[in-house]
Amino acid sequence: MKRRQFLQQSSLAALAASIFAPAQLLASGTETKNGEWDGTTARNIIFLVSDGMSIGTLSMTNILLHRKEGRSSAWMELYEQGKAKRGLMDTASANNLVTDSAAGSSAWGGGVRVPNGMLNVNADGSFNTPILQKFKAAGKATGCVTTVPITHATPAGFCVNNASRNAQPGIAEQYLQLRFDVMMGGGTEFFSAEKRPDKQDLFAKYAQAGFSVARTKQEMLDGAAGQPLMAVFHEDAIPYSIDHIQDTEFQATIPTLAEMTKNAIDRLNKNKKGFVLQVEGGKVDWGAHSNDLGGLVYDQVAFDEAIRVAVDFAEKDKNTLIIITTDHGNANPGIFGGSKDNKKFDSIFGFKHTNDWILKGINKDFTASQVRERVEAALGFTISPDEARQLLGHYARPDGEGLYNKAKLPFKELGEMLGNYTTVRWASMDHSGDHVELTMLGPGSELLKPFMKNTELHNLMLEAAGVKKA
Amino acid sequence: MKRRQFLQQSSLAALAASIFAPAQLLASGTETKNGEWDGTTARNIIFLVSDGMSIGTLSMTNILLHRKEGRSSAWMELYEQGKAKRGLMDTASANNLVTDSAAGSSAWGGGVRVPNGMLNVNADGSFNTPILQKFKAAGKATGCVTTVPITHATPAGFCVNNASRNAQPGIAEQYLQLRFDVMMGGGTEFFSAEKRPDKQDLFAKYAQAGFSVARTKQEMLDGAAGQPLMAVFHEDAIPYSIDHIQDTEFQATIPTLAEMTKNAIDRLNKNKKGFVLQVEGGKVDWGAHSNDLGGLVYDQVAFDEAIRVAVDFAEKDKNTLIIITTDHGNANPGIFGGSKDNKKFDSIFGFKHTNDWILKGINKDFTASQVRERVEAALGFTISPDEARQLLGHYARPDGEGLYNKAKLPFKELGEMLGNYTTVRWASMDHSGDHVELTMLGPGSELLKPFMKNTELHNLMLEAAGVKKA
Repeated sequence: MKRRQFLQQSSLAALAASIFAPAQLLASGTETKNGEWDGTTARNIIFLVSDGMSIGTLSMTNILLHRKEGRSSAWMELYEQGKAKRGLMDTASANNLVTDSAAGSSAWGGGVRVPNGMLNVNADGSFNTPILQKFKAAGKATGCVTTVPITHATPAGFCVNNASRNAQPGIAEQYLQLRFDVMMGGGTEFFSAEKRPDKQDLFAKYAQAGFSVARTKQEMLDGAAGQPLMAVFHEDAIPYSIDHIQDTEFQATIPTLAEMTKNAIDRLNKNKKGFVLQVEGGKVDWGAHSNDLGGLVYDQVAFDEAIRVAVDFAEKDKNTLIIITTDHGNANPGIFGGSKDNKKFDSIFGFKHTNDWILKGINKDFTASQVRERVEAALGFTISPDEARQLLGHYARPDGEGLYNKAKLPFKELGEMLGNYTTVRWASMDHSGDHVELTMLGPGSELLKPFMKNTELHNLMLEAAGVKKA
Repeated sequence: MKRRQFLQQSSLAALAASIFAPAQLLASGTETKNGEWDGTTARNIIFLVSDGMSIGTLSMTNILLHRKEGRSSAWMELYEQGKAKRGLMDTASANNLVTDSAAGSSAWGGGVRVPNGMLNVNADGSFNTPILQKFKAAGKATGCVTTVPITHATPAGFCVNNASRNAQPGIAEQYLQLRFDVMMGGGTEFFSAEKRPDKQDLFAKYAQAGFSVARTKQEMLDGAAGQPLMAVFHEDAIPYSIDHIQDTEFQATIPTLAEMTKNAIDRLNKNKKGFVLQVEGGKVDWGAHSNDLGGLVYDQVAFDEAIRVAVDFAEKDKNTLIIITTDHGNANPGIFGGSKDNKKFDSIFGFKHTNDWILKGINKDFTASQVRERVEAALGFTISPDEARQLLGHYARPDGEGLYNKAKLPFKELGEMLGNYTTVRWASMDHSGDHVELTMLGPGSELLKPFMKNTELHNLMLEAAGVKKA
């Protein structure tokens, strides 16, 4: 589209907005904050994705916060205060009703549905340009923060073309060439000489190429403002939120998603032409894959705190489009019926650790009593001796299901058992094809339709920011 | 609230609507159609409730219609065409995070959260006036149509006070006194002398009291326009939609939900002051309670056809508020991942009968081959001999779960088995506490907030119609 054409359409959109949209959504680009930014569009976009979030996850977290802390989640508060618009999103991929996170992020990132497992690569091998490359070319500062490896599918889908999401060592190299401004997450094994298959020291290469390299929270805080930042805090994913809170070393060295988000916004916002940032609550998906209730809901709470950071910034800034969504459902958990069960649900208040922490700390030489003690230490209540023996039975020959369950631990069995204690049950350990929640506020949110395909968000972001479509 | 006060607020609401709401929502009461109706509010309200509809049910049905018929569901089409607004609704009851249908309907019907099992009766025994009584007193024509017994919890929650939803014979008597204009559904056993505990012939009493009494589709069509109608088509609930389609007697004698809805609207719309109608897709909930995929999705399709009837009317009428929602999730089904599974989901295209039909037609003397034949006749594919034997094993000593499963048939086992063939899986056989979809269009829909408590719909309906609150 020619620039003049775009501006004409943009004016029409602004006119439409002035007729159709709630007043608080009308701030879009009416005040020019500096000479560089054209002032008619969204200066910044913060795209927040709670990976693998079924509506049950969103609901349970809101209900938990109401019962535990007497408040709504930040996400639901946006609705209650009439600040945001809602849509439903169809999440399918090119070859499947149920997308994986690579195809899910690519739908937004490249504007095209690709087959599961691929990052902005079509079935015929052709490429779709990832959206952060487009925004970088347009002069925006760009970045991604996540609680899983920074090379994982969801950030990668905004950044790179790669025929396989599993090529994480290669994706770590792609990021070096692409020079986005802020990248933060886990995944040290894809950067360190000791763990990479090719023994390259990518941390050294990033430093040589002029990046600030951070391995701890303090290094993130200290990283020079004028340089791009590659911050990688932990091997594999960052620990689940409640495990993180209980561990003083984690606390000292690994920032929360909200802290990463705040730091990223501060850095990116220095750019005169604004910024685009993806924020991923990646372990919400892992919690669902493991039917791990504490992992799931408290990582959703951590994601919700990142929403609050983003919204606080946007409300002051007034020129930031916020998009909040998920790439697909996962496990379709819910609080299920029966009388007098509210107290069972409230047992989540006392959770100190995840099922992940419970199961990884057990070995086949444990007694049933030791298993029961570990469950109690984690959850504040325990399971029966029979249930403990049933769990132990799976340690002799590990056979557990679940995508990120390399040790084949009995996550499914424990998740199912705990349903009787918490009233929370699960339909699967896999992604679902449900339509999902899609929320927007700020300039550009007038482009939200009540029902959208995941791919439509690609052009919506470009249009909201006044960046030429491909 | 005093009438003048109300009108003032109403004017403010209209002003707000003119600023905030999409143009197509602005029709509210600007044209007076007759002398009786005041012309400033919604003349009619059609409240459509798909009982026990998890978001997965809504999604699967829309995906099914896309793949099978190349079209969206009527519900999603409202979003795609920008005709409706969306909210999320919190569904809890007075004593439980997970409501039952009695407390769910009472929240809307009486504006107050009551304990599970109760119909507009509070824990202290006090009553909340049901909304159809309020609307009747204000001169509106009123009615309910449903696919479950007309005395069942969801219609009853708009109509009566009763400390127990199970008091269906008594509720059938309450309806006689209350004289709503149109009541249609199943539940002959609560009206007939043969089946009622007290041996009263309520059908005769209704006729004596000046009702048209209909027992068949033809009698519904023939029922005199000037009389209230009590139409009861079947013992217990009306058969599931796909079982209904396969049975010529059912086809001849029992109307579909869409046909009931159309007939009810035609009757009610003759009233000069307009009408309020509840339409319930009640067996969506029963399908979820039974993990019965064919029952669930095709009854959701039947509900969707009732939506289309209501919307077609409202679009011509221009003075009707349409509300579409559910009272709670149930079973949280979903299409779950894995590659090349789309064809498995598409097997639903060929379903001719429900699991209900399959299981009720088997007895303990069946062979595994006969079981496999019956499954194939119903679904178009069959299960393995081992699976057939596993099902048969439950017929010697029936032990099946599920709320409406009096014969204790192995619904859970069959639902789980079929997950491998259809990719659809279930988290439970019970209601869930998920926040649920809430949709509105037409005059009054400007009162929709993006997040609402179920109880808030009570006053919303009164306010939309300009009827004084309690």
